[in-house]
Amino acid sequence: MNHFFSVKDVDDIDALVEEAFAIKANPRGFEHVGRGKSICLMFLNPSLRTRLSSQRAAQNLGMDISVFDVGSGGWQLEFSDGVIMNGNKAEHVKEAAAVMSSYFDIIAIRAFAKLEKREDDYSEQVLTQFMKYSSVPVINLESSTLHPLQSFADLITIREHVSKPRPKVVLTWAPHPKALPQAVANSFAQWMDAVDMDLVVTHPEGYELSEDFVPADCIIYDPKEAFEGADVIYAKNWSSFKDYGEVNNTDTKWMVDENKMRLTNSAKFMHCLPVRRNMIVSDAVIDSAESLVVEQAANRIVSAQTIFKKILES
Amino acid sequence: MNHFFSVKDVDDIDALVEEAFAIKANPRGFEHVGRGKSICLMFLNPSLRTRLSSQRAAQNLGMDISVFDVGSGGWQLEFSDGVIMNGNKAEHVKEAAAVMSSYFDIIAIRAFAKLEKREDDYSEQVLTQFMKYSSVPVINLESSTLHPLQSFADLITIREHVSKPRPKVVLTWAPHPKALPQAVANSFAQWMDAVDMDLVVTHPEGYELSEDFVPADCIIYDPKEAFEGADVIYAKNWSSFKDYGEVNNTDTKWMVDENKMRLTNSAKFMHCLPVRRNMIVSDAVIDSAESLVVEQAANRIVSAQTIFKKILES
Amino acid sequence: MNHFFSVKDVDDIDALVEEAFAIKANPRGFEHVGRGKSICLMFLNPSLRTRLSSQRAAQNLGMDISVFDVGSGGWQLEFSDGVIMNGNKAEHVKEAAAVMSSYFDIIAIRAFAKLEKREDDYSEQVLTQFMKYSSVPVINLESSTLHPLQSFADLITIREHVSKPRPKVVLTWAPHPKALPQAVANSFAQWMDAVDMDLVVTHPEGYELSEDFVPADCIIYDPKEAFEGADVIYAKNWSSFKDYGEVNNTDTKWMVDENKMRLTNSAKFMHCLPVRRNMIVSDAVIDSAESLVVEQAANRIVSAQTIFKKILES
Repeated sequence: MNHFFSVKDVDDIDALVEEAFAIKANPRGFEHVGRGKSICLMFLNPSLRTRLSSQRAAQNLGMDISVFDVGSGGWQLEFSDGVIMNGNKAEHVKEAAAVMSSYFDIIAIRAFAKLEKREDDYSEQVLTQFMKYSSVPVINLESSTLHPLQSFADLITIREHVSKPRPKVVLTWAPHPKALPQAVANSFAQWMDAVDMDLVVTHPEGYELSEDFVPADCIIYDPKEAFEGADVIYAKNWSSFKDYGEVNNTDTKWMVDENKMRLTNSAKFMHCLPVRRNMIVSDAVIDSAESLVVEQAANRIVSAQTIFKKILES
Repeated sequence: MNHFFSVKDVDDIDALVEEAFAIKANPRGFEHVGRGKSICLMFLNPSLRTRLSSQRAAQNLGMDISVFDVGSGGWQLEFSDGVIMNGNKAEHVKEAAAVMSSYFDIIAIRAFAKLEKREDDYSEQVLTQFMKYSSVPVINLESSTLHPLQSFADLITIREHVSKPRPKVVLTWAPHPKALPQAVANSFAQWMDAVDMDLVVTHPEGYELSEDFVPADCIIYDPKEAFEGADVIYAKNWSSFKDYGEVNNTDTKWMVDENKMRLTNSAKFMHCLPVRRNMIVSDAVIDSAESLVVEQAANRIVSAQTIFKKILES
Repeated sequence: MNHFFSVKDVDDIDALVEEAFAIKANPRGFEHVGRGKSICLMFLNPSLRTRLSSQRAAQNLGMDISVFDVGSGGWQLEFSDGVIMNGNKAEHVKEAAAVMSSYFDIIAIRAFAKLEKREDDYSEQVLTQFMKYSSVPVINLESSTLHPLQSFADLITIREHVSKPRPKVVLTWAPHPKALPQAVANSFAQWMDAVDMDLVVTHPEGYELSEDFVPADCIIYDPKEAFEGADVIYAKNWSSFKDYGEVNNTDTKWMVDENKMRLTNSAKFMHCLPVRRNMIVSDAVIDSAESLVVEQAANRIVSAQTIFKKILES
């Protein structure tokens, strides 16, 4: 593995999950892999789980860690080629990536969608340019369109808690007061599609995700039909992909509540967090024994540590 | 010791002070206690001494450390139960505390009083909720009403510099241009009351602290009478508890100066820092040989390391 | 070496460069020097290279590191003596420096020029006061007037890439949309002057640097004459020293481009970064094989590690 941008960078997903279980069973057992190696965790946006879990993963591997908040500790970067840099951007990614490559063995980056122009976000300029100009591996800590360390943690969690072969996994849109990126939903669909899951995606009309990540034949617009017999309910809000970045719907009937959960096959409830209680999911569901939200978050250390280890070994 | 919220979590204060002296004599002698253990230092407010001394304490114990600034690196948390989270708060403490508990062996939190509603601050919502929902020990790095690591460092400092049995310790209010919490004063009084000190509290009328921390019979309104024969003068500003959060008095006669110090029994001068020179205390007093302000601050590493060690061992 | 404020704190520059080469050849070979020692990296201003390279340098030495952003994590400091502190500054440098000295073995500080009053910036109040009140060594991570770790890295880079004795080194002003400090230019001239280089400084009239750092006989106003036969072109913008902090000139003829580089003796191109492409330097020049900008930045770890090591050993 060189860069880790998406599930497409994984050769053998099942083997990766097995490796994750080995790491989870013995988190401190691989310090020899990371000792003397360094990682930069670079944040263009806020973070709780990613920030803390990736630090813990690197600490478990005995790595040297630098956390770099570009906004508060540094300055804005220019990502376009050939421009006259007479505006607000103080440094070009060519230099930033080359210099950081000379400092660290791995560069991990969080760079959210701006939700202004779809073409800009879906071009993945920040990650793409860093991967282009960095001479060391770059890891996606959530980019404009994908959040692969979250999805990998989600997969680990499903494998731990759902033993049935080819379970029915339902990704359901749910309402939220603010415009959110599609990254978690895209990435979850991409990972579920890459392994043997019966993936169904349900959302209001107009909330279709990019067909690059969610084929039309996965979509069931009626949430009741979608929830029917589900083994896993994965809730997530996203803003519209079609009317890019818009919030056209806050209908609370899309909230995941006990009535809906009764339609399922005693499904596990999942969400990547942070979650708006009583908007996305009712207190009763998230506080129930079927809720895996904390387990998912705990597995963020495991997914990050597995990827860091794979990259250090290659 | 499970959580460390206040002096009430300490079984045997004298034994704790003895342990602090042992740690101070050999700060690197206990790395085996912390090696492989992790701590999150979580700041909802700015900090210099607490931020740096608690890092140094954890480093001395060989711990893995993550510093998390909620404001700049994360987002606002919801602390109330049952609400529909459709406002500015992105995550509920239930999830945040549970997730952080899965990442760290200890969670240490700074969360100042807001000085808006007294009931809110004195309910200690942030620390109380974190202690409720965390499955690992929570440490108070200064909450709305208490600052126990400061008070413990103050006690260590007094024991080092004042050998007399039952010394007269005077907590004196002093003027400040801004509204400050009562936490340091409350906590100092609570600790002095728990050990064998002759505690006197002096302040303008209307600046009475909560009787939960300062019994009425400790108060002497006349500063001259209060200072008479004192062995320790501990200066601190706080805003009004009665007219909650208000600054009703900036009378500079309450500043600690050489004239007042002459009334004492060659008292040591103490303040938790940061201190406004020539508002709280004159240059001459803080720069005198009797001033212990730097020693107190240096003992912040010792007090934090002692508590971290106790918690890791239990 | 006690404090490291400028090249004047170096006894033997050639020996220091030799030590830097030894460290570069074996970065992890000196962990015994730093193990159990602590450093505070204190930033009053943003930083990318300095922030990350000084962390990497301290990590290579096995040190305990605390990064402290005064603006976001702490509060404003008072640097003047005798004032009544009733304004926005919460703590005096006397206490801050004394306390931090009790926490760390080294304090390293970034504190940019404010470009308001020349006397204020050139008095170097922040660094001078910290050096005065700190009981441990203080290191300059770029002060109002000097950036010695950058200049030392520049010298290391020139020694690696230019074998000729007494090369012609040209410091050229170049245009920039914003007012920048003179620190990098001052410091580069001071270091080049301290070793055996043929230093030429070229800039528009009115952009003369302080004669304390650049003697009048180094200046050649005509850039073509200055570039003639140069072995090294070091580009940098600075705002006016005479009309202090003003930007009187943004003439793009001062940009370093291929035409100008053709006048040189196949000169190496240098800049401390961050650099504005197509303002300071054309894409063609910075992307050419003669460009050393990434090598310079990489040597920032080496220069910092060498100074940290020297200070820890003394």
